[in-house]
Amino acid sequence: MYHHVKKLMYTVNVGEADPKFGKMLLEQFGGANGELAAAMQYSVQGFNCEDPARKDLLMDIGTEELSHLEIVGALIRMHLKPMKSERDAAEADPLVAIAGGGGVALFDSMGNAWTANYLKVTGDLAVDLRSNIAAEARAKIVYERLIGFTQDQGSRQALQFLMTREITHMRAFTAALDSMEKPQFAVGIIEPTPVLVDQFFNASTGEGQEGETDYVGPWNHGNGLTLVESDQIGGEGLDVTPYDPQPGTEKTSPADSTPVGAYIGRNGQSSSAAHHKNKGKTAKHAA
Amino acid sequence: MYHHVKKLMYTVNVGEADPKFGKMLLEQFGGANGELAAAMQYSVQGFNCEDPARKDLLMDIGTEELSHLEIVGALIRMHLKPMKSERDAAEADPLVAIAGGGGVALFDSMGNAWTANYLKVTGDLAVDLRSNIAAEARAKIVYERLIGFTQDQGSRQALQFLMTREITHMRAFTAALDSMEKPQFAVGIIEPTPVLVDQFFNASTGEGQEGETDYVGPWNHGNGLTLVESDQIGGEGLDVTPYDPQPGTEKTSPADSTPVGAYIGRNGQSSSAAHHKNKGKTAKHAA
Amino acid sequence: MYHHVKKLMYTVNVGEADPKFGKMLLEQFGGANGELAAAMQYSVQGFNCEDPARKDLLMDIGTEELSHLEIVGALIRMHLKPMKSERDAAEADPLVAIAGGGGVALFDSMGNAWTANYLKVTGDLAVDLRSNIAAEARAKIVYERLIGFTQDQGSRQALQFLMTREITHMRAFTAALDSMEKPQFAVGIIEPTPVLVDQFFNASTGEGQEGETDYVGPWNHGNGLTLVESDQIGGEGLDVTPYDPQPGTEKTSPADSTPVGAYIGRNGQSSSAAHHKNKGKTAKHAA
Amino acid sequence: MYHHVKKLMYTVNVGEADPKFGKMLLEQFGGANGELAAAMQYSVQGFNCEDPARKDLLMDIGTEELSHLEIVGALIRMHLKPMKSERDAAEADPLVAIAGGGGVALFDSMGNAWTANYLKVTGDLAVDLRSNIAAEARAKIVYERLIGFTQDQGSRQALQFLMTREITHMRAFTAALDSMEKPQFAVGIIEPTPVLVDQFFNASTGEGQEGETDYVGPWNHGNGLTLVESDQIGGEGLDVTPYDPQPGTEKTSPADSTPVGAYIGRNGQSSSAAHHKNKGKTAKHAA
Amino acid sequence: MYHHVKKLMYTVNVGEADPKFGKMLLEQFGGANGELAAAMQYSVQGFNCEDPARKDLLMDIGTEELSHLEIVGALIRMHLKPMKSERDAAEADPLVAIAGGGGVALFDSMGNAWTANYLKVTGDLAVDLRSNIAAEARAKIVYERLIGFTQDQGSRQALQFLMTREITHMRAFTAALDSMEKPQFAVGIIEPTPVLVDQFFNASTGEGQEGETDYVGPWNHGNGLTLVESDQIGGEGLDVTPYDPQPGTEKTSPADSTPVGAYIGRNGQSSSAAHHKNKGKTAKHAA
Amino acid sequence: MYHHVKKLMYTVNVGEADPKFGKMLLEQFGGANGELAAAMQYSVQGFNCEDPARKDLLMDIGTEELSHLEIVGALIRMHLKPMKSERDAAEADPLVAIAGGGGVALFDSMGNAWTANYLKVTGDLAVDLRSNIAAEARAKIVYERLIGFTQDQGSRQALQFLMTREITHMRAFTAALDSMEKPQFAVGIIEPTPVLVDQFFNASTGEGQEGETDYVGPWNHGNGLTLVESDQIGGEGLDVTPYDPQPGTEKTSPADSTPVGAYIGRNGQSSSAAHHKNKGKTAKHAA
Repeated sequence: MYHHVKKLMYTVNVGEADPKFGKMLLEQFGGANGELAAAMQYSVQGFNCEDPARKDLLMDIGTEELSHLEIVGALIRMHLKPMKSERDAAEADPLVAIAGGGGVALFDSMGNAWTANYLKVTGDLAVDLRSNIAAEARAKIVYERLIGFTQDQGSRQALQFLMTREITHMRAFTAALDSMEKPQFAVGIIEPTPVLVDQFFNASTGEGQEGETDYVGPWNHGNGLTLVESDQIGGEGLDVTPYDPQPGTEKTSPADSTPVGAYIGRNGQSSSAAHHKNKGKTAKHAA
Repeated sequence: MYHHVKKLMYTVNVGEADPKFGKMLLEQFGGANGELAAAMQYSVQGFNCEDPARKDLLMDIGTEELSHLEIVGALIRMHLKPMKSERDAAEADPLVAIAGGGGVALFDSMGNAWTANYLKVTGDLAVDLRSNIAAEARAKIVYERLIGFTQDQGSRQALQFLMTREITHMRAFTAALDSMEKPQFAVGIIEPTPVLVDQFFNASTGEGQEGETDYVGPWNHGNGLTLVESDQIGGEGLDVTPYDPQPGTEKTSPADSTPVGAYIGRNGQSSSAAHHKNKGKTAKHAA
Repeated sequence: MYHHVKKLMYTVNVGEADPKFGKMLLEQFGGANGELAAAMQYSVQGFNCEDPARKDLLMDIGTEELSHLEIVGALIRMHLKPMKSERDAAEADPLVAIAGGGGVALFDSMGNAWTANYLKVTGDLAVDLRSNIAAEARAKIVYERLIGFTQDQGSRQALQFLMTREITHMRAFTAALDSMEKPQFAVGIIEPTPVLVDQFFNASTGEGQEGETDYVGPWNHGNGLTLVESDQIGGEGLDVTPYDPQPGTEKTSPADSTPVGAYIGRNGQSSSAAHHKNKGKTAKHAA
Repeated sequence: MYHHVKKLMYTVNVGEADPKFGKMLLEQFGGANGELAAAMQYSVQGFNCEDPARKDLLMDIGTEELSHLEIVGALIRMHLKPMKSERDAAEADPLVAIAGGGGVALFDSMGNAWTANYLKVTGDLAVDLRSNIAAEARAKIVYERLIGFTQDQGSRQALQFLMTREITHMRAFTAALDSMEKPQFAVGIIEPTPVLVDQFFNASTGEGQEGETDYVGPWNHGNGLTLVESDQIGGEGLDVTPYDPQPGTEKTSPADSTPVGAYIGRNGQSSSAAHHKNKGKTAKHAA
Repeated sequence: MYHHVKKLMYTVNVGEADPKFGKMLLEQFGGANGELAAAMQYSVQGFNCEDPARKDLLMDIGTEELSHLEIVGALIRMHLKPMKSERDAAEADPLVAIAGGGGVALFDSMGNAWTANYLKVTGDLAVDLRSNIAAEARAKIVYERLIGFTQDQGSRQALQFLMTREITHMRAFTAALDSMEKPQFAVGIIEPTPVLVDQFFNASTGEGQEGETDYVGPWNHGNGLTLVESDQIGGEGLDVTPYDPQPGTEKTSPADSTPVGAYIGRNGQSSSAAHHKNKGKTAKHAA
Repeated sequence: MYHHVKKLMYTVNVGEADPKFGKMLLEQFGGANGELAAAMQYSVQGFNCEDPARKDLLMDIGTEELSHLEIVGALIRMHLKPMKSERDAAEADPLVAIAGGGGVALFDSMGNAWTANYLKVTGDLAVDLRSNIAAEARAKIVYERLIGFTQDQGSRQALQFLMTREITHMRAFTAALDSMEKPQFAVGIIEPTPVLVDQFFNASTGEGQEGETDYVGPWNHGNGLTLVESDQIGGEGLDVTPYDPQPGTEKTSPADSTPVGAYIGRNGQSSSAAHHKNKGKTAKHAA
């Protein structure tokens, strides 16, 4: 259950209204990496989460993002105000000015209606936490760029507040993922095919117009990865020996989500046993 | 420039056509976490990448994903075939059967047209690599779930191949991010506000119907994070002292993208200098 | 600022999981007339509202709808559970089962991602209240139809709870509109053209296959409206005498929103004066 | 069956072409509250309507809106003409200029393609009439705002014509709803839960940055509604006693649509009997 | 201006309602190649058309497609009726059944809302006629497939009627294009680059899993086209000698649309002169 | 399987960056008629194609379009560069500047995300080739218009290169369609209804504001087509005699796709026999 108090989480002040900057700010209200996207991604993940400790985390941050949505909304509304009466300002975003009356709305900076296609929700906790870490990094960089395009101190400070919170959340999601104690590249319950998983495929070769060329880096040399040249240009190609999936071979965590699929484990039992869930262990102290 | 050879990267065999499973597989052809999404996300990032070494990486993987799109397409086409002549099969997805003639198409498993809204492309390399790590984790789990819903050995082996590659790519993107040698939570060029960045806000409290309650975990206790209770329920609330953004204070990497924004650095110069770009260092040996 | 407590506003119980009914219920989670649509429509209107009394109303109901979203989500999650492990159930909505892990998601019953295109927000308070009255009527009928397709008592009672709240809100929005004391058909600040406004145009004539024909009703006869036959079939047609708009001629309310447009009133002053705003009158007692 | 005559319903004249105003006008051609939305909403409702008298009304107005679409299109085309040859004009909407050749198109003022998601069609006549009343109010205010942003007399007069028709239609839809003789808040066939339906829930409290606070108004005091404080902040909360739905308890009209759902009425018969349909009564004189 | 008569252009009869077939039929109501798409594509092209003769053609066919929309709607409505009361039927399309009350709606067979993204309108008459020829071919094949999935004679006959009209329109659009007397591959006002325009590029080579291989056909051999092997696999590659565009070098027609762009012709005059428009020639007899 | 070489198919040079022109160019990267649309339309058709010769054609051109996507991307990226640091430039497309970091992205010139709704793929080869011919004509005219709005020689030459290739492809698709040796208006396997198919219906009559009137042209007089006046205005109307579909009566080609539908031919056998497929004839020499 939700409750709203009329006080904003952060008090917003704006010097002079700048409607074109207000339009830019819409990116963080109704845009792909904006506050509604964050609020919905984490809250819906939270509604579905089977691990009560990390469900608490998801609801904490999902709810805070709703408060951020309100802050950004207040900031935008101040900047958009001239769209109500000035033709010049209205031209910058007629959808906002004429259809929306010059108020904040769930569109991005180019008038695209917010869509749940922006969200990344798989229902697998360890995967969702990775999506959230990336989402926070994206939101951080967008706030930073907005700061770069305004000189209004009140706006900059409000954006700095919001930007900072993204880093806090990024740290929290990372801590939550780490605390699941899964190996870094263990996802789900089926191990990848040996040998093949170590082959980095060189699908782009040659030299480009701006001096682009083939590089050796830790992504294709070291870290257990080896470079494989494409059979299309005379290389040996990937190892394509057929390999049967082995459910229950990947290391899981007590906090993992139920696996999805009608699996029969190697011993003839449902592979969900592979989770060895022991919810008792996840007491009110999650760690 | 691209070239296509008619040989599939992985030879696909299917026992008995299963049109409803074919429909499920569309998720990885025209779906949100599917192969076109991967191919386009990495390729467009690659087109924009200013660091030639990691641009090579992005083009390698982006191109390989196009080859995966072709494999999934071949697999789906085999499974959908009965939609051409059997009413029962056609009912499962009339958009595919009647509008598309029973062939593979850029829709997901519920008929949603593929949209670039699925992509996460910010143009900031370190951020994009995080989005890619998360994207690979999502694709892995989706393949695993598809494996769980078919007993056809040829399909399972093909999906195992594709699933494995996602883990390879996840490792490669992780190595590329690590090799940028940025601190784990450094994004862009502006440092978050001190103190505030350490406060975890407890926006969800109380006890739920299924025993949900407040937890202490490493995301709100330890790791430098401290729990702050909401002022809405009598807590102290977040530290909302206004703080001016400080461009150029965050640790960057030689491989970082140009910062975006009309920044003036602290010494009166453009903050892009904060990058201390030394492209010469990123020789053909990227590390 | 928002706060969340883990207790649901209404405790949800489900007898036997019915995944196809769960899919139907998605209509009220991520569908066009669902709870997120209601929450966002009223909250965004509230963020923009210039009348503090009705802003309070909009925030009250907007926030309650978020709590409803959570209730519907809990109900759906219980019904969808078999999608995690049963192929039959997963076939009903592979997007939910395979991409979403069998959890609740911001899609409607046919897998369409929620979009802000569902919202009706004009920033004109009296118009928005009419949109809200209609929205509540739609949500009511959808809940009623859902009740008609399940025999599960716990589900029916939960839906009855949610359905009832829509009528409460419909009454509240109606009272708020009435309390603005505007004439029933006064919208904005420009009067419609006399004579023309009374002409009902008979653009559809003749007799149809199922006995459809021309009717006389209170919408074209009485209520000040008169029937005009189309010039296309030999009638006199509408009165198309050009008429200049007269800003400031429509009766407004102290609670009205600022008019939008670069109007010059009849006395040479900005027509926003036509509102005769007296915010002082709208004290804490709104009436 | 439809017929078109080349004469516009209203003759359009434009002084000087104003391409940025033409772009604004697209809002009423391919926008959310524009003429195609109106034409399609009423016509599709009309196609489905089981009450022949109000079906006639819906087809009359749905068809008139098509004629309006043509008028707005003619107006826009005149204003957009400079986009064909002037770079400045083309920059304002390259989608129109370059992809569309400078002609009118089914996009809104920000280039969003028209979508049927704009429509509100439930198939319940009394609900749909409410949606139509709100739709007409929205279209009216959008026309009024467009008038406010142009000084071209020919454009203003054409917009005044179109704006006026929205009020005519709003009156007609209201008369049609009233003539169904249903109680104001009776929707469908199931009564809301007693007591609960009278409780207005105070989900937003406290004081805001711009002086927002809690108000008493006719929506939470009087009109049979009583204020309930949230249990989240120590109030008594809503009455959540479970209550079974009672199909057939809400007052219906002879013109009502068939109820939807597999209802069994209280006497063991299909609740559609609750409608007591007497189509004979709805003779060619609808009233 | 439009007028509607209640008589359908073709009287629709249905034996037994088949809701899953009704769902398939939605493809031609609210689908990508359906009747609204046709009506809107031709009507909007007609609104913009500068050649009065072919404008008449576009309005004729655009209006007839509206009458077809109504026929398909009537057919679908008969088939969907069981969705109002039978759970099984409602499961096939809950969006139609529960949100839409079991009536016809502007969705396709998988519930996607109709979007103007389906339309192809460039404002270049000769290009638009080609798009229309292709659109009619698509609509024909979709009707034919629908016929293949029903045994109901009334439905089959109605679909045969509608299918036939598509061929009529395809012939009419072809005649209109031919009568413009442009060379078959002359589009717009700029000639393609000589030599390069004759080179067919062999970008896909090798042999595939199902015996796919390189073919010689009239598209790469003869018809003035010659095969060029890719430089990527050791071929000579395309002729990439830079070539300046020559506006006014392509053969145009008196019925052509105004060219779009700020062209300066070779003689220093606006290249629109290249059209040699002689509207007087296009008298009431178009040929 | 795909391979990428870093060398662009056409080397791109730009004089001075023109961010507003870069925004226009997005139309051909992520727009409705752009290079990704072409690449995907032909490649997906190719994945599904049952005729190996024309499948080769589709893969050749589909792959070349990917190389074009890369060229357009390089061109756009050069023009957009100022969006990274100049507020003015960033205002032109904040979605690109702020969310995307000033790089090329899969949006069109008004910020609409690319959608597979742009594609026309029916799985019927002869129909798809018509869609491709039209698609190439559209792409040609869009490139031509872009040329018209820039004076930068390098950009103009690159666009001329890309524009030329569209005409090459249009010729190739036309040759491929012709080589199927089907009558011009034969689509699928069911003949249209005799007599009715020859009737051109005059659904738009009268005289318009700009002198529009009824025309006689080769689309309604000659070419076997005869004009029929609407019964709505007193004409005889179309011949609506019911007619049963006759599968297997339309002339097909050995290269035709499998017909879709559960047809029973006139002799009691599956009508797919009507194709008289003789794949042996379609040897490596396709003609």
